[in-house]
Amino acid sequence: MSDIPLNHPRYKSLVTRKRLADYALAGVVSMEGLTSHGRGEAFDYLVGEKTLKTALEAEKLAACVFLAASHPVFSVNGNTAILATEEIAELQKVTNCEVEINLFHRTEERIEKIITILEKAGVIVSCGPVERCIPLPHDRGLCRPNGIGSADVILVPLEDGDRCEALVAMGKIVITIDLNPLDRTSKTATIPIIDEVTRALPNITAECRRIKTTGKIPKMPASFDGDYYLKGAVDAILENLAHALD
Amino acid sequence: MSDIPLNHPRYKSLVTRKRLADYALAGVVSMEGLTSHGRGEAFDYLVGEKTLKTALEAEKLAACVFLAASHPVFSVNGNTAILATEEIAELQKVTNCEVEINLFHRTEERIEKIITILEKAGVIVSCGPVERCIPLPHDRGLCRPNGIGSADVILVPLEDGDRCEALVAMGKIVITIDLNPLDRTSKTATIPIIDEVTRALPNITAECRRIKTTGKIPKMPASFDGDYYLKGAVDAILENLAHALD
Repeated sequence: MSDIPLNHPRYKSLVTRKRLADYALAGVVSMEGLTSHGRGEAFDYLVGEKTLKTALEAEKLAACVFLAASHPVFSVNGNTAILATEEIAELQKVTNCEVEINLFHRTEERIEKIITILEKAGVIVSCGPVERCIPLPHDRGLCRPNGIGSADVILVPLEDGDRCEALVAMGKIVITIDLNPLDRTSKTATIPIIDEVTRALPNITAECRRIKTTGKIPKMPASFDGDYYLKGAVDAILENLAHALD
Repeated sequence: MSDIPLNHPRYKSLVTRKRLADYALAGVVSMEGLTSHGRGEAFDYLVGEKTLKTALEAEKLAACVFLAASHPVFSVNGNTAILATEEIAELQKVTNCEVEINLFHRTEERIEKIITILEKAGVIVSCGPVERCIPLPHDRGLCRPNGIGSADVILVPLEDGDRCEALVAMGKIVITIDLNPLDRTSKTATIPIIDEVTRALPNITAECRRIKTTGKIPKMPASFDGDYYLKGAVDAILENLAHALD
């Protein structure tokens, strides 16, 4: 594998890709996770690689709902664990939320490796026997009955659309973080955050900290309607694209 | 690795990802190539997963220019070799063009593996010593002096923007196939084809066959200006996005 030239115009993006690739070779990130990351990269480019105004509104609403939950669970997959290790630890420090590993391509070996990485960063990972609590074929339906299975609010970055839909159908409040506003994940989530995961999580954490420190619940959110946040992102992409060839 | 459920709504996309992932594990596709594929997937979704009218115009122009070249070379990388093995063989059958392997993450082992896969599909791969004919750092500048190095027209799907720019600066006519109309590859190419590689190549091959069979050179192309083809794709994306949340 050749080194990435420092003067390459997409240096930062290539370094993140390389990090994910190294963890894929180590069996932590799934190979398909690398492709998913590429899809995210494309949409991040289109939204302008920054947190949109409507995304920040969704993040503040998410913080409020996450804090108000009786049983909030942070569902973490391989890509999220590698891309946002420290950010997961910070959010848990502020909210004491449960963190559960949930993988599309699930093996006990991958789960163990992810737990090791998260624990090294100070995350307390909830472990234990899993059952098919989510009505989906194969291992994608597996989770802890007293974890995701009984959560009222689930924060789940980079989720599969199929599973997101199933969780919402189970009556759960699902907060997603995904850069594609047209993905089924974003379209079916209760609160879809259209932002990059390492930008979104610190914003949620900061708002949780603010609410806990000041005791001040924010004023009514811009919208409880997920479509509002999707529209914000689509409008931003339209605006960026309209001038892309100027 | 779990099986992909047949009823998954993105079954086809997941199967292609799995194919690339398997070839990545086998050392043929680079790990970073998986992420690049994801970027392409996102843009293919946005253009509507079909050949646009302006893309077909670019493909017909490309066929004409490729046939008229005195030394046309088809530059193939790992992703192209795996995604479009048969399509490469078909185009070579009709045009007798030279096929040269050119990799961003170059190792002799990867090159040998790709040659084996292509030869099994009937492709004649031009091999031989390489030199730094392209003024770029690291192995990305390496190619055959009597191949890509002296080609007047290069067809290069899924190319790195940096290298595309360098090839154009060397005075070559560069035909690219890439789904991102805003990528530097598309912006700097002589003829940027904004289409998926397994849709674009058969269109080019069909047009080459038609010209050779009928002897009829097509009428003047819609445009010799690359921006025309980029604008066609951006307009299609804008149109699709404007109705995406209806």
